[in-house]
Amino acid sequence: MIEQRKPIAVAEAVQRVMHYAYQEKIEIVPLHQAYGRFLAEDIAADQDVPAFNRSPYDGYAIRSIDSEGANAEQSVVFQVVGEIGAGYVYDGIVDERQAVRIMTGAMIPQGCDAVVMLEITQSFEQDGQSYMSLKRQVQAGTNISYKGEDIQKGAILITKGQYINPGVVALLATFGYPQVTVFKKPIIGVIATGSELLEPDEALQVGKIRNSNAYMVMAQIERAGAAAKYFGQLSDNLELCIEAVKDALQEVDILITTGGVSVGDYDYLPAIYKAIGAEVLFNKVAMRPGSVTTVAARNGQLLYGLSGNPSACYVGFELFTRPIIRTAFQNPQPHLRREQARLGADFPKPNPFTRFVRATVSFDNGQLTAVPCGFDKSSAVSSLEGANAFIVLPGGSRGYEKGMQVVVLLLEDMQGSEWPWDKIEKSYKS
Amino acid sequence: MIEQRKPIAVAEAVQRVMHYAYQEKIEIVPLHQAYGRFLAEDIAADQDVPAFNRSPYDGYAIRSIDSEGANAEQSVVFQVVGEIGAGYVYDGIVDERQAVRIMTGAMIPQGCDAVVMLEITQSFEQDGQSYMSLKRQVQAGTNISYKGEDIQKGAILITKGQYINPGVVALLATFGYPQVTVFKKPIIGVIATGSELLEPDEALQVGKIRNSNAYMVMAQIERAGAAAKYFGQLSDNLELCIEAVKDALQEVDILITTGGVSVGDYDYLPAIYKAIGAEVLFNKVAMRPGSVTTVAARNGQLLYGLSGNPSACYVGFELFTRPIIRTAFQNPQPHLRREQARLGADFPKPNPFTRFVRATVSFDNGQLTAVPCGFDKSSAVSSLEGANAFIVLPGGSRGYEKGMQVVVLLLEDMQGSEWPWDKIEKSYKS
Repeated sequence: MIEQRKPIAVAEAVQRVMHYAYQEKIEIVPLHQAYGRFLAEDIAADQDVPAFNRSPYDGYAIRSIDSEGANAEQSVVFQVVGEIGAGYVYDGIVDERQAVRIMTGAMIPQGCDAVVMLEITQSFEQDGQSYMSLKRQVQAGTNISYKGEDIQKGAILITKGQYINPGVVALLATFGYPQVTVFKKPIIGVIATGSELLEPDEALQVGKIRNSNAYMVMAQIERAGAAAKYFGQLSDNLELCIEAVKDALQEVDILITTGGVSVGDYDYLPAIYKAIGAEVLFNKVAMRPGSVTTVAARNGQLLYGLSGNPSACYVGFELFTRPIIRTAFQNPQPHLRREQARLGADFPKPNPFTRFVRATVSFDNGQLTAVPCGFDKSSAVSSLEGANAFIVLPGGSRGYEKGMQVVVLLLEDMQGSEWPWDKIEKSYKS
Repeated sequence: MIEQRKPIAVAEAVQRVMHYAYQEKIEIVPLHQAYGRFLAEDIAADQDVPAFNRSPYDGYAIRSIDSEGANAEQSVVFQVVGEIGAGYVYDGIVDERQAVRIMTGAMIPQGCDAVVMLEITQSFEQDGQSYMSLKRQVQAGTNISYKGEDIQKGAILITKGQYINPGVVALLATFGYPQVTVFKKPIIGVIATGSELLEPDEALQVGKIRNSNAYMVMAQIERAGAAAKYFGQLSDNLELCIEAVKDALQEVDILITTGGVSVGDYDYLPAIYKAIGAEVLFNKVAMRPGSVTTVAARNGQLLYGLSGNPSACYVGFELFTRPIIRTAFQNPQPHLRREQARLGADFPKPNPFTRFVRATVSFDNGQLTAVPCGFDKSSAVSSLEGANAFIVLPGGSRGYEKGMQVVVLLLEDMQGSEWPWDKIEKSYKS
């Protein structure tokens, strides 16, 4: 069975896959394990931050009106009627010419409307009573961190689908979330295929290669935020393959095979998809590398047939699988982050297919610049280690020159893009 | 004991800390757990990649010389003497006008120097023998992926200290590393201090705040690549504090306390450092926020006294702790990644201290632009969730205007910088 393959445009292929995007289940994790996950609920401030007027410095809380007339020549003396550390509250009401010694973070006592820093005061004792003298007039509000100045109660600062970075963790702690509701990591199965494959612990044999794709894809799955499950290599026997794929589908949310399962002339994938009743969404994409990427669906589950060539496999995953993972987290920007960059090399030869060149982006005085890295063949493995972006070169009758503005898709990035493909097309038309 | 604190410059403070940078121990992990770790050995190619001349397509392997004279009018006929799939080797030597049916990835048979793609041939049978006819002359070398064209045996593509991304995983698999030697994650202890602190599972009380710093710092520790261990909150009792710190130091590589351990007027930290014989490297830095950051050392172990204010604590960790973690991995770029960006807001008021403004960097047509996020006080917690960079504004008599070129330090980045501080100073002088 040599299958006829009809290439479709990249954007169309992504769209067909996105139709099967789904919402992953939620789970609850302790706050200290929430970093790096995606939030599954909107989080509202359960309090103002600060929750009370507080002092940002060590000093004395006073009524500012009492400092009137104080200057370098004439000091005003305050009776020190109490002392409060952070976490403590002064019970009384501060009266005329009274002051309370206050520590950083402590609540401003009733009656006070300013804090004078310790450094600009003089303290002394007289008849067993503490006093403080001040040679400066202060305005009402001086050195007060006001209730709600940072965050107002009820404000929704972090929303469902958001990536949990250290700052989000700080907010979750502040708002009282010892447990956090996050999206479950989709479980993505990986099956390697190809009679030429050795596992990394096997000695090289003539004509064979080590299986790098399965391990690479598992790392890509982790980078995207999901969990990988390796099922090893498929057998050469079609019946066994069908059973293996069926069994794997019971245990995973998404299944990826890499390589063509080709035994002699025979590519097993179409036969497997047919046998298990999966609908092939596409089996060829007008792009390089990765043109033979196949995606099929069965009962809402996606099956990816990624290329056996490392670069092609890598690109296929990032374009077609990553956005499904991020959509399972309800992240509003599930696609690779799209930016403009200055092209750092010439691509003089036109190519009918849209190319995704593995590249290193860096900054030249703040200007994003993209340089291809390593060997640019779909079989290349050397070009992936330095890649933090793809340069997108749309197919057509033109070449591309160093210095031109091109679209890049960033790989090491938690932010992502909304649907980027319309803009990508546009940016090359203008 | 109210301590005198003498501020030192940021670069000087980082330098003092870096003096105590150390090399972490190594450990061996299975390849499928190596993603996100740092490599502890140089990895040389144990083979050429490809390891043999191979076919990038399905087709026929031939001797190109036999195609001479073939054209649209006149086809050349080859006897098909064998068929090889990927992973298999053709035993014989291909002779005049012979061809071997070859699959993608299979080794080029002896005698052949070109592959013709299936699509441009016609196959037929005659007297039980297979033939292939070709109407095109091909050059020697056509459609051959040459041995070593991607990677040459002995080449060192990945080196000690390198971050393991999916492309590095692919290389490790290719070169036969089922186990990978990586640097151990330093264990970083976290102790929260402050009588005002409630844990996230406690109800709010008047005058108190929830402990956000410990959880935030644990996430920062993880982001930097290390492992966090939480020791809870310190007691108000000095003797108990000293014992707790001593005990914690037995279990960790580095110890972070957040907050001043202030009980009334009394900051316990200097007393604790003194009691355990730790040398204070500095206890004040000429920067905002985070000026009260303290770092001490004892028997090569670093003790960080980070501020109780969330933004100050956050900045202190990224400037002073992160580079120690990355140096433990022998990463040559342990500091935050330094780049130039266009300032997206005005900072008209001069400030004597170097400021690290929590900011969101984004791209404006490929030009890095930095906009402050949230509330800019050292006590702010809202400004951290959107922060992916610090804007560095050196202290002095000038303000800064929107549109100016400024230095930014990127937070969500695995690449880092070599010592950035000389360049930061220079970039504001030019």
